[in-house]
Order: sequence, then structure tokens, then C-alpha cells
Amino acid sequence: MTEPLKVGVAGLGTVGSSVVRILNEKAELIAARAGRPVVVTAVSARDKGRDRGLKLDGVAWHMDPSQLARSRDVDLVVEVIGGANGAAKSCVETAIEAGRPVVTANKALLAKHGVELARAAEEAGVAIGFEAAVAGGVPVVKVLREGLSANGVSRVFGILNGTCNYILTRMEKDRLSFAECLAEAQRLGYAEADPTFDVGGHDAAHKLAILSSLAFGVETDADGVYVEGITSITPLDLEMAEELGYRVKLLGIATRGPEGVEQRVHPSMLPRDSAIARVDGVTNAVEIDGDAVGALVLAGPGAGGDATASAIIADIVDIARGIRTPVFGIPAVQLTSPTRAPMGTHEGGYYIRLSVLDRPGAAAAIATRMAEQGISLRSIVQRGREPDFDRPSADPVAVVLITYATNEAALRRALDAIEADGHIDGVPQVIRIEKR
Amino acid sequence: MTEPLKVGVAGLGTVGSSVVRILNEKAELIAARAGRPVVVTAVSARDKGRDRGLKLDGVAWHMDPSQLARSRDVDLVVEVIGGANGAAKSCVETAIEAGRPVVTANKALLAKHGVELARAAEEAGVAIGFEAAVAGGVPVVKVLREGLSANGVSRVFGILNGTCNYILTRMEKDRLSFAECLAEAQRLGYAEADPTFDVGGHDAAHKLAILSSLAFGVETDADGVYVEGITSITPLDLEMAEELGYRVKLLGIATRGPEGVEQRVHPSMLPRDSAIARVDGVTNAVEIDGDAVGALVLAGPGAGGDATASAIIADIVDIARGIRTPVFGIPAVQLTSPTRAPMGTHEGGYYIRLSVLDRPGAAAAIATRMAEQGISLRSIVQRGREPDFDRPSADPVAVVLITYATNEAALRRALDAIEADGHIDGVPQVIRIEKR
Repeated sequence: MTEPLKVGVAGLGTVGSSVVRILNEKAELIAARAGRPVVVTAVSARDKGRDRGLKLDGVAWHMDPSQLARSRDVDLVVEVIGGANGAAKSCVETAIEAGRPVVTANKALLAKHGVELARAAEEAGVAIGFEAAVAGGVPVVKVLREGLSANGVSRVFGILNGTCNYILTRMEKDRLSFAECLAEAQRLGYAEADPTFDVGGHDAAHKLAILSSLAFGVETDADGVYVEGITSITPLDLEMAEELGYRVKLLGIATRGPEGVEQRVHPSMLPRDSAIARVDGVTNAVEIDGDAVGALVLAGPGAGGDATASAIIADIVDIARGIRTPVFGIPAVQLTSPTRAPMGTHEGGYYIRLSVLDRPGAAAAIATRMAEQGISLRSIVQRGREPDFDRPSADPVAVVLITYATNEAALRRALDAIEADGHIDGVPQVIRIEKR
Repeated sequence: MTEPLKVGVAGLGTVGSSVVRILNEKAELIAARAGRPVVVTAVSARDKGRDRGLKLDGVAWHMDPSQLARSRDVDLVVEVIGGANGAAKSCVETAIEAGRPVVTANKALLAKHGVELARAAEEAGVAIGFEAAVAGGVPVVKVLREGLSANGVSRVFGILNGTCNYILTRMEKDRLSFAECLAEAQRLGYAEADPTFDVGGHDAAHKLAILSSLAFGVETDADGVYVEGITSITPLDLEMAEELGYRVKLLGIATRGPEGVEQRVHPSMLPRDSAIARVDGVTNAVEIDGDAVGALVLAGPGAGGDATASAIIADIVDIARGIRTPVFGIPAVQLTSPTRAPMGTHEGGYYIRLSVLDRPGAAAAIATRMAEQGISLRSIVQRGREPDFDRPSADPVAVVLITYATNEAALRRALDAIEADGHIDGVPQVIRIEKR
């Protein structure tokens, strides 16, 4: 086992560059852990001229990542190009066909094509490592795939997108608007120029689909994830949450129950003293509820070149040591097709903020509509207006309702009836409450 | 790989019984994850008559655990007898000699004899799994051993003893004394009849020695751990900590710095909003500071039959899959002998509570002794006495000092001088402040 493992790195952005640099700088430590030297023998990127501060003497350069994947210089392919299709997918497929293990940070690829790739890899007898695809440097894939073999998992949930958590934390701390905090996150490099993928919840949805598959032994079902982003959250929601003992987080939540697998990404209220509620800033955190172990929490940096490279290199070292775990923990042919639990059957408490037109009978009508659907209210808060006698009294007031556990379909019927009654202005804000 | 893995379980206490039960109940799930059936073929315990609620039909019973270890019925030996020597050690040694991998929850054995056993196991080409030996169900061994290959670790620390954390949490919440909370913990089964091993910090010290070895690639050095327990902590200390923005936790802390490896278990003050400070009750939690990944936190149940069995079964499944990681992450022959950093060189802030005799000049003398040793004080709090004119004014008053970072040797010199001056009553209470 003293033959070096020859690594080809496809993609030399922030993450790819960190992988090459750390493999060089820590060659000795990594060789001790891997039982053999791990050397970068090939890279692939479009712009050969750019200075990335890397020593690439003697390293083969491939313009085409698939060419790298089939090159004889390479025993293992690191794919950090990104994207569910195109060059990334071709590169990974080519590597598998050539009998080479793959390590990737590509959540979109895994979420969309994970099962197909896992089957191909397991037929070819090669591993796919994707620790870096979920929660960056936090080893949640390893923990779910290898650390909880004795457990049936009932729920896995957490903060899977650091951009959203940064924005929500900032909004909360300084009572700023979503737009202000997004602009700040963009200035600091925590958010992309086009932030839709992050703030719309789609990035978290990809990661959640991967976690569901690992947790429940089901095929990845990215299209089955219910997704809401954080763009409608206002400072008032965060303030009300605080008053009521909650914090608002964009959570990815996957549960397995009698209705099937429920996968959802949306802003959630969590009891403020729960482990996940306390996680601030760009940190990611995941809780896994296992029937043998109980509740496990993992938290750490969810992004960044070195943190992501840490996850990639752990996968490389596992493969260098000869570890051949099935891609999703059990053989891909044994993964079952998940029954999607429809959102209408979701059971839980709700926070509802309504802009109520200040006229006699409005509150009574709202309470009646809730009661008609069998929904019990745990609290009702009407925010007293700041004394401002210049304002017309026709301005709507914010009324916040917290419900006891009910189901989503009943809640939607009640809200439809309330809207039809004409007592409210605009769309009700609905935030689901997640149990600790 | 469809040959079943035959498991022998030596020790049928709470943990051993959970292992047997879960392996039976979840045979199908575990076989899917392991790539082969995992069956219990032999057990060993002294009292054969006791009803443990287990199905043991067709399972061989050995009175002698070493006999189980060398039996042909067994491919892998689970050692859950406990104790650093005696039957547990013989059983593990016998298994290794017989070429059988071992999975153990025995922290004392690993802390005291880990290197020797690792060398023997690696020579024999067998694995030793010991996830369950540290932090119960929390997969911190796997994360350090496999998940952080790219990282140099500068510090690993955390709450490693649930009994102590339960007692401290209770003391803090209800202002109860140590003795009251210990008695309660004993009633609830969280503390042993003889609690010395837990509350004296020795259990945490064993776990810390194992973590140090994994984190820094050094030989386990249980005798090199500086140990203080929690018996001297008073409700007043917890109250003062709260006022000053801290919480008191019994931490195991291992750092690697220019002076060598510092391993210490003692009550520590942590900023109250740090991840580890917020962990309450019997939960364990570990933070690992890696140079690539940053700060990772893992938290979960640190004890209990099923949680510990979860860790044991994960190790069994890894071995069933053919995983052969070096015991401490790098080959045992490459582990270096750690240089022990003496406690005198420890640098940090300190909380000091003195019982000061209420006489003129006492405060000035104390401040002078600190200044002589170059120690700067960040805050001084003298607790005003409750108005009670019946009490003699000679009663000492509690004075709390918080120092800026200093070193332990200087602090000890200052305290010796203060004691010699005769202004204080009793022994100063010293609690180290740990950086977040």
C-alpha cells in the first residue's frame, strides 16, 4: 500500500485550489493517515493563465475534465466544477466508466442524479465520496452513512445554507430589512450576485434530498422537496418570534412517518433554547434523531475553500485506505422509492401574521374561521400601534396567531376563508413551528 | 461478502444487552449497511440465570471472556466488561492474538493501554473500534480518526462526563448545593453509588487522553492529564459566573502548542453564548478546532445502553464492511511520545474567589500581590452582605477577581503570597476561563 494515490482535480475555483494546496502542504500528515502518499497529478480548469498561487509543476493540465477523468495519470477524480449537468456530470460518469472513484462537492449533481450515479459506481466497484456536498466541512454524511448503522432515523433537520442564516441573524440582531442584509452579505462574499438559489431555499433543498436518502434509505427525490425561501421574512416576524420564545431559521427538514417521507425547506420557528436555534451566522448545523442514539447535533463551517477541502480530503483518504462504503449507506439497488407525504398532511404548530383592517368584528371573524377548522389558538398578539395621531385609523394592524398542532390543509382552508371575509390586507405570513 | 459476521459479546450489563437486542431486532437494516448479516453467536457474563430479556437461543455461553475471545464461534469480539486491567484486558489481548477484531467501550483500557493494544492489533492486522469509549453515542472518534484527515488540530475540548454536567446544570438552575444534586443524580441513576470516578474528573481524563491521541497523533498519556473534579464548586461560584457572563462546566481540554501537549480536566468558565457552554444535563459535547475546517461541534447522549450500543454497532458494521483504519488514525508505531506542557505554563484568564477577612487594607494587599506578579485584573466584585446586623462584622466576605490572561505559575505565586499575608480565610477557589 505504498503506491501513491494519484489524484486529478477537475475545477480550480476556491475549493479546488484549497484541495491542491492542502494536499501539497500536508503531504506527510495525509500520507500517515491514508497509509500511502496522496499526490495531485492532474488538474483541469478553463483558464490556464490565472495565478492561483499553486505549485503545479509536473502536474498534467487538461482543458476537458472528462479527459482528466479518463487519463492514465489519475487514480481518483475530484469534481469541483459544479452544476447538475454538463461538464461536471460527464466528468463523473467518465471517471466511473473508467473504474475510478470520485470525490465531489456537487450537491446539485447528487440530488438530481445521485441514485443513477450510485448504481453505476457500485456496479463498477468504485466509491463516490460527497461529504463536501452537504454542510461543507461538517462530517454529516460520514456520520449518517457510517456512524449510525444501528439507528432508524425519524428526522434529520438543520441549517443547511449559511447565506440565509447569516441574513436572518443580521436581520434579527439589528432589526434590518431582508434587502439590507442581503446587500451586506453580497458585499462580504457570503451571497452570490444572483442570490436566488440560496435565498429561495433551492440550495438547502438539494442538500436535504441527499440527507433524506442517507437517513431513510430512499432514493434521492429533489423534486419532492417543498421549498420556500426567506425573502418574505420581515423584522417584525423576528421581533414577534423573540417575544414568543422562538427564533426564525431557514431549515431543511426531512421526516419519515406513516404518511411517507416529508421533505421541506422553509423558514421555521424553533424554541430559542434548542441547539439548532442558537446557531448564528454562516455556520451550518444538523440534528439527527436516531432511535438508538437519540438526538445528535453537528455544527460547523458550511462553506469556504478550506472547510470544504477538509471534507473532500477526508473522502480521498478514506478511499486511499480502501474504504468502499455504498454511496448512500446501503446498496443503491436496495434504496426504495420514497412515498411523498403531501404538505397538506403536515402536522405542527403555526405562526400566522395577518394585516388586519381595523374595523369592528374583524378579530371575532378570524377566530371563528380558525375554530371552524378545529384549530386551537395558543396565543394571539395584537401589536399596539405607536401613538401617531397623524396616521389614518384605517391602517391595518399586525395580528399574530400561534396555533396548537394542526394540519396544513385545515390551516390553508381557514386562511382562505379569512381572506374571503375581506378583513385582512395582503397575504398572510405563515411560518411553521418546528418541535425541538 | 454474504458470510455472516459472527459476534461475541463479552459482558451483558446494560450496554452489552442493548448491543445484543439491537443486533437481533434490526438484523435486516444492519445487514444492508454491513453488506452481510451480523449475528451474535456467543456471549459471556457471570450470572447465567439473570433474565435480561434477551433471546439467546443457540448462542454459546462462556463463563470466561477470554475463552469467548478465542472461540471458533466468533469473528469479532465486543468487550463491554470494563476496567483497565483484569478480565477486560485479557479478553481483548486474547482476541487480538487470535486475529479477531475488537470493539470496546472501555475508556480506561484504551487510555492506559491503548498504544500497546494498537501496536499488537496492527501487527496482527485486526481493527480495534472504540467509538463508544468517548462521549457515548456521539461519533467523535470517527470524526477525529477519519473525518478530519486534512486538519492539524490545535484544540479538542468539551463536556465528557454527563454526571458532572447534570449536577452543574441542576446546581445552577435551582441554586442547590453540590451534595444535594449529587444525591439527586444518584437517585436518577446518573451517578454511581461511589461517584468519585465521575465527580473527581477521572472518567473525563480517560476520555480526554484518547481524544488527544487521535487529535495530535501522540501516544495516549492518561497520567499526563491534570485533573480537578467539581466537588469544590459552590452555588455562589455559579451565580458569580452568571453575573460575569460565563457558565461553569467540567471540561476536558487538550491543546497542542509550543510547550507541548496540555491535557487538563477541571471546572472551566466558558462565555455563556459559546456552543459548549449551552449544553445542559447529561448531554456530552465536543469541539474540535482544525486548521482547515475551523471549529466543529458534536453533541449528543454521552451514556445510556442504547446510545452506547449505537456507537458499538457502528464500529461492528465498519469492520464487517472491511474497514481497517489504524487504531488512532495513524499507525501506532508512528505515534509520537507527547511532551507534557506543565500546568505552570498554562496561559489563560482566571476566576478567583477569596473569603476575605473584613479588615482595612485587605483589598489593597490582595491587589498588590497580583500586581507584583504582573497579573492584570479585569474585574473585581465584592458581594455586599445581606443586611444582618446580628452577624459579627468579622465574618469574611466573598471577593471575586477575574484576571486577564496570565500564566498559572504567576497566579499560584500571587495566591501563595495572599494566603501568607493572612487576609483570607480558607483556600482560594480558582476556576480557569476557557476561550470560546
